[in-house]
Amino acid sequence: MLNIEELRNKITLSLNKVTLDGDPKGLYEPVSYTLEQKGKRIRPLMVLLSTQLFEGDPDEAIPAATAIEIFHNFTLLHDDIIDKAPLRRGYQTVYKKWNTNIAILSGDTMFAIAYGELAKSKPAMLPQLMKVFTHTAIQVCEGQQYDIDFEELEYVTLSDYIKMIRLKTAVLLAASLKIGAIVAYASDEDAEKIYNFGINLGIAFQLQDDLLDSYGDQAVFGKKTGGDIAVNKKTVLYIKAIEKADALTLLRLNELYTNKQLPVKEKIKQVLQIFEKLGVKATTEELIASYFNTALSIFESINISEERKKVMLDLANSMMHRDH
Amino acid sequence: MLNIEELRNKITLSLNKVTLDGDPKGLYEPVSYTLEQKGKRIRPLMVLLSTQLFEGDPDEAIPAATAIEIFHNFTLLHDDIIDKAPLRRGYQTVYKKWNTNIAILSGDTMFAIAYGELAKSKPAMLPQLMKVFTHTAIQVCEGQQYDIDFEELEYVTLSDYIKMIRLKTAVLLAASLKIGAIVAYASDEDAEKIYNFGINLGIAFQLQDDLLDSYGDQAVFGKKTGGDIAVNKKTVLYIKAIEKADALTLLRLNELYTNKQLPVKEKIKQVLQIFEKLGVKATTEELIASYFNTALSIFESINISEERKKVMLDLANSMMHRDH
Repeated sequence: MLNIEELRNKITLSLNKVTLDGDPKGLYEPVSYTLEQKGKRIRPLMVLLSTQLFEGDPDEAIPAATAIEIFHNFTLLHDDIIDKAPLRRGYQTVYKKWNTNIAILSGDTMFAIAYGELAKSKPAMLPQLMKVFTHTAIQVCEGQQYDIDFEELEYVTLSDYIKMIRLKTAVLLAASLKIGAIVAYASDEDAEKIYNFGINLGIAFQLQDDLLDSYGDQAVFGKKTGGDIAVNKKTVLYIKAIEKADALTLLRLNELYTNKQLPVKEKIKQVLQIFEKLGVKATTEELIASYFNTALSIFESINISEERKKVMLDLANSMMHRDH
Repeated sequence: MLNIEELRNKITLSLNKVTLDGDPKGLYEPVSYTLEQKGKRIRPLMVLLSTQLFEGDPDEAIPAATAIEIFHNFTLLHDDIIDKAPLRRGYQTVYKKWNTNIAILSGDTMFAIAYGELAKSKPAMLPQLMKVFTHTAIQVCEGQQYDIDFEELEYVTLSDYIKMIRLKTAVLLAASLKIGAIVAYASDEDAEKIYNFGINLGIAFQLQDDLLDSYGDQAVFGKKTGGDIAVNKKTVLYIKAIEKADALTLLRLNELYTNKQLPVKEKIKQVLQIFEKLGVKATTEELIASYFNTALSIFESINISEERKKVMLDLANSMMHRDH
């Protein structure tokens, strides 16, 4: 069995082989720029780890793993236009460094390149892989659209919010695991189990992302602390605060989220004070723990030796301990 | 053998079956809006006609034909953002009717849906179809990027321009024909011939599009006459004018293309007068005829009865006689 570093090296090798020095440069430079950034490669790792878990050959899963990583980066590229995000992994986003048109078009190209990589999978399994990959790609777009829609809503329920992050974040982690299982010829039951493990892990991961945005260490996390509050994002923290607040606090919170005169730093500070008073952090941590524990118990129910399971568990645990 | 109307009906039926009434509405309404517009469906028709030409079953080519049409519409959707085009087929473009973010995201979704349709092809031919489709999708993005790059250049050679429209327009027509041939198990030689027929036909078609933009009847053509001149697009007419102009005319032309004070109508009128003086229209018509004749002679060299060839020839001819 290969460890995470060995598997990550295989992914890096495969990503490096994708030909990206072509013409026109205006198209391929942003693609290389995006793929060369050292991401954690969590999704392709999940593909390979899942294949290995079910006693398949990780090398056979490399095309699908590469496809998933390129697809993921394509979605980030377009999301950054939509969210007007200036930074990603500490680097300028493509739409900022170049412009929106270039970001649209180089993103589109990456989506096509992702399918090109997927098509290098064993022909016999291609139809099934295509089905999971494409269905997931559509769901990710749906999730992003819900996220956009939520900006216009005054109030979002926790269940709507979970539905959104399930689509926007969790299904791609889950599909990565399922695709890995398919490559290893796992049973349908095991493929479903590993998918549901991924869904719950993905939701826990995204909820924790929300938490780190407000409580994380900027140096470790790579984003500005309080960024979500600054742009009035209705994250799980905000939703939990609304649930818990009395009438007066609700009014105060509403005022803070609509007041455009208040300096951003001051706004973040005051919102965090309200979160503190309402115990939002602890409640969110409980919710995260609940999804993570569900993920773990689904994973336990897969009938494979503890030894084989260890590498996957290590990755899942490392995903949940990014900052503190 | 089915005629064009019968084949077009099959395409309409298949497009109608693509489920598009899902949630979130913000994502699927623009997709339905785009696909429900009555386009000429030239590309999917080419897929089916090519399958029929090589004695295959057009029904087996329906998934690929549907994929190509959805892909084509996706590229238009993103191109309209990039070109800031307000109208398409007489309707508001998606980015105008909704907004840029919605147009990016619903376009991305259409790209995924296109692959979803392609994946419904016979499993045995899927790897080959994926390869042609994906390679072509990447080329179309390259063509669009060259088109963007050309806006910044002072002078574009005819050969660079042909390279650009080859990628942006011709390869998709050519790939449609080749995919139809693959579905019919045509020989590699025939698949190459029909591809090259498509390349030459596609270039002729795009050059004629340039011509119609300046000389077409707005009511028939559906676009404002002189639109390319209004936005300083370096079409074949402009390139030919630059080639033919003496120093004084060149200066005058340059002035017209950079003067921002001049009313657009007046600018179009004066540029057209220069084109007239230089005989640009006739030269362009010769160039179009030359590509079209090359297309026809490649088509003739395919060893199939004249009777089988007739429907395809009819479509090719109708493409070249849209307006006058």
